[in-house]
Amino acid sequence: MAIIRKQHGHFLEDFEPGTLLRHKGGKTITEGLFAIFTDFSMTANPLAKSRRYAQAYGYRDLVVPPGIVMAVVFSQSVEDISENARANLEYIDMRFGAPVCVGDTLEAETLVLGVKGSSKDPTLGVVHVQTTGRNQRGEVVLTFQRKVQVWKKDVNAKLADGEAQPRDIQAALTIPPYDASRKQLAHFSSPDTYFEDFTTGDVYEHTRGRVVTTDHIMLTGILDNTSQVHCNQWMVTQNPDRYVGGQLIVFGGLPFNLCLGIASADIADNALADVRYVTGKHTAPIFAGDTVFAATEIRGKRDFPGRPDLGILTSTLRGHKFRKKDDQVEKIEIFYLELEQALKRRSHYV
Amino acid sequence: MAIIRKQHGHFLEDFEPGTLLRHKGGKTITEGLFAIFTDFSMTANPLAKSRRYAQAYGYRDLVVPPGIVMAVVFSQSVEDISENARANLEYIDMRFGAPVCVGDTLEAETLVLGVKGSSKDPTLGVVHVQTTGRNQRGEVVLTFQRKVQVWKKDVNAKLADGEAQPRDIQAALTIPPYDASRKQLAHFSSPDTYFEDFTTGDVYEHTRGRVVTTDHIMLTGILDNTSQVHCNQWMVTQNPDRYVGGQLIVFGGLPFNLCLGIASADIADNALADVRYVTGKHTAPIFAGDTVFAATEIRGKRDFPGRPDLGILTSTLRGHKFRKKDDQVEKIEIFYLELEQALKRRSHYV
Amino acid sequence: MAIIRKQHGHFLEDFEPGTLLRHKGGKTITEGLFAIFTDFSMTANPLAKSRRYAQAYGYRDLVVPPGIVMAVVFSQSVEDISENARANLEYIDMRFGAPVCVGDTLEAETLVLGVKGSSKDPTLGVVHVQTTGRNQRGEVVLTFQRKVQVWKKDVNAKLADGEAQPRDIQAALTIPPYDASRKQLAHFSSPDTYFEDFTTGDVYEHTRGRVVTTDHIMLTGILDNTSQVHCNQWMVTQNPDRYVGGQLIVFGGLPFNLCLGIASADIADNALADVRYVTGKHTAPIFAGDTVFAATEIRGKRDFPGRPDLGILTSTLRGHKFRKKDDQVEKIEIFYLELEQALKRRSHYV
Repeated sequence: MAIIRKQHGHFLEDFEPGTLLRHKGGKTITEGLFAIFTDFSMTANPLAKSRRYAQAYGYRDLVVPPGIVMAVVFSQSVEDISENARANLEYIDMRFGAPVCVGDTLEAETLVLGVKGSSKDPTLGVVHVQTTGRNQRGEVVLTFQRKVQVWKKDVNAKLADGEAQPRDIQAALTIPPYDASRKQLAHFSSPDTYFEDFTTGDVYEHTRGRVVTTDHIMLTGILDNTSQVHCNQWMVTQNPDRYVGGQLIVFGGLPFNLCLGIASADIADNALADVRYVTGKHTAPIFAGDTVFAATEIRGKRDFPGRPDLGILTSTLRGHKFRKKDDQVEKIEIFYLELEQALKRRSHYV
Repeated sequence: MAIIRKQHGHFLEDFEPGTLLRHKGGKTITEGLFAIFTDFSMTANPLAKSRRYAQAYGYRDLVVPPGIVMAVVFSQSVEDISENARANLEYIDMRFGAPVCVGDTLEAETLVLGVKGSSKDPTLGVVHVQTTGRNQRGEVVLTFQRKVQVWKKDVNAKLADGEAQPRDIQAALTIPPYDASRKQLAHFSSPDTYFEDFTTGDVYEHTRGRVVTTDHIMLTGILDNTSQVHCNQWMVTQNPDRYVGGQLIVFGGLPFNLCLGIASADIADNALADVRYVTGKHTAPIFAGDTVFAATEIRGKRDFPGRPDLGILTSTLRGHKFRKKDDQVEKIEIFYLELEQALKRRSHYV
Repeated sequence: MAIIRKQHGHFLEDFEPGTLLRHKGGKTITEGLFAIFTDFSMTANPLAKSRRYAQAYGYRDLVVPPGIVMAVVFSQSVEDISENARANLEYIDMRFGAPVCVGDTLEAETLVLGVKGSSKDPTLGVVHVQTTGRNQRGEVVLTFQRKVQVWKKDVNAKLADGEAQPRDIQAALTIPPYDASRKQLAHFSSPDTYFEDFTTGDVYEHTRGRVVTTDHIMLTGILDNTSQVHCNQWMVTQNPDRYVGGQLIVFGGLPFNLCLGIASADIADNALADVRYVTGKHTAPIFAGDTVFAATEIRGKRDFPGRPDLGILTSTLRGHKFRKKDDQVEKIEIFYLELEQALKRRSHYV
């Protein structure tokens, strides 16, 4: 007879560059996950709202917004990569491939690229990984690298320092071909968010905001994200020094999607795809009770090769919250993302 | 380079009688929206619970309760009509047409009927509109008028006072034909809520109640209702004078449905359709933490033309909550609705 | 004209041994209910996550975890059996039959087996019932007995003391036949939770925990569980002596599923079915804010007749929460369940 306390996830010393981890579970994007999580995000893109519109645009069914695809694939990697993480540091070169529709089943795997102990804190270090998500047909839907700060289990453990080369993963961005008949659906999206409407250098301060409630715990659970810092209240209450004052931290995938969603009404309700998130990071934690706001800076515009009906908009998305301190309102940046989105041109769609 | 703060929705001076606004987005009623929102309402009608029952009654799939159809169509009109509203004043002549099943996609448009500045408060006025919802086949599922109190953006702006005629919208109420074989499903609904069981003048004080939690924010988001007074906590906290003491107000569609649902166990689990909501209004706001109760007064009974198996029950539904004040319990009416529902007759269904 | 306050559910004196109650409503397990409730439970079994995996294992679609089947069938019996209950005392001989997939419609009926007044408290007594759930094809999915403590309406009412014989309900546990090609999906579940991996006498202290929030009210509503002690805040606040200090009590089906889910990552992500819950009970109430933990004691192992690819694991699942009292941490057992699960053998699946 033994008492067994099974470890879930890996600690810093468990990672070895070059290891490929095929994640458990898989995840079918049911209409339940879709409704709760898509709509939570306030996305304004009709591809995610109206089956009639999505099908007229050549998709099998309602389209899962790219940020949700990210949240699903990322969450599948949590048990293996970041269940014992302190913080997610950086998203790198996140590229999208096949579109994901409601009903698709996503599966994920992660290659360990590097492990590096902290020079300041012997209990911590950084793991660098490359995660790829595929659908039930094996098509890549998303591939990205990330860096995450992971706890050591044994402070004196030796680390498998070093680097492995990332694999050359092709994410073939797929957008159904142009069809002029879609002009009759133009009233379903904004009249002033076509590619032609944007000017490099402009900054959009999105006017809407949304409070995050304790619902974040359920939303995170629905993604199968098993990280305990989002849902184990007793654990964090018992150890406030380790866990940001004893508060449950909101899973980064939620403000990530909320910022994208808040921005979408001004920027992306005429987008047909998100092409790439070049880099991104969470710059401050979010807790239940915080209201999330966002702003977008237009960084550039270019043609979409082979698609005269589309253009690629490059922008920076920033999320923020406010706090009152000594009667002063303080603005705290919580999220940063550089992104490239494929937008319809008015010339072809109105 | 410019800083852009895009206005969402219209202010009082933006409305012009006669304008037809085709709303963005559209909304597919996924099984996710259906489960969360239908079941939240405590509806007792098996048409919304059992696919087997709904299909035996001639419907394609689970039937969306009329109040939810209202909440979805109404919410699509929020950005254009009431994102900058202070309060929804009145629902008028709400008539139902084609039944809505899970999986249908609803689209909405609104005709502006009138604009009227307040004689007392120069920052406000009333907009009178006619909103119509259709399904993916273009059939009318719902049409109604409403009056809503909207803020002015510029106190000195001139208003387009005046009136436009409402359009003559036909909402063809569709109920599948009678089939005697349904008698074998009689045990799925109450034995004492058939048309014959009701007496004009009787008042049902429904015994169940339900508390509204901060979940209301998610429920409202799932409806794509973009009104900031339901979800932007920072905004209302900063301006308690304008926003009922700094509290998020619960979207009226939620107590609307909760009152219908609480009443349904006593009144409408044998209804095959809601025919018309003659008039309705929210008489006091609801906040997270309030427990909602309801009562129904039977106002009249009449035949359903051409359908000997059905009768039309006319009633008034009132919602209320309680508050303790100086050790006294105060009953506060929160909702009022006059409705006509098509009920099965025991003679044909048992 | 009359004021009518319809009673919902039965009081102790209303029950008569031998009565068969066919419950109202029925319940289609939509993808919405499935996503919210399955994923809330933190279940780790890929049959409930990946449609591709579930179909490769011979199921029509995603498989509803047995605990959720229990919660759905149980909840259908609440109005008739326990809407006016004080506490659910015991689950007895809960046996599973046909597997339940998302999209199935469940219906339930309950036979009253016995009624017994309390010798200590004249306002209370115990009802003993046998509840059976069937799918849309009439196949038994679940049958169980339970004992529940129900209030009397009239303290002086006479009880129909006595006993009726339970019916002999066959629940034919159905597991699709073995197929060796499933070995290629082995990475979707844990490598160390096959039948061979367990040792009688071992105790697993599951390391994950999850806080229950006020979301429990919505989760319970989604199950159509109408018991007022879970959602009528005003009622319990007004009568703290009767209702555990004026707090809403969390529906037992939630910690039941949460304990099963927390345990599943260590015990049951390679289970193909739960065969039987021999006995179970809630040993302390759960409230919003409590964090739920669980532990499993392995009690025995035996062959699965006719299925060399499977073995039956017998275990005891215990749930607990912690409370701080005078700076001491107190561990409170909240749930107890003896269960038999059919686990894959590594010899056949890896």
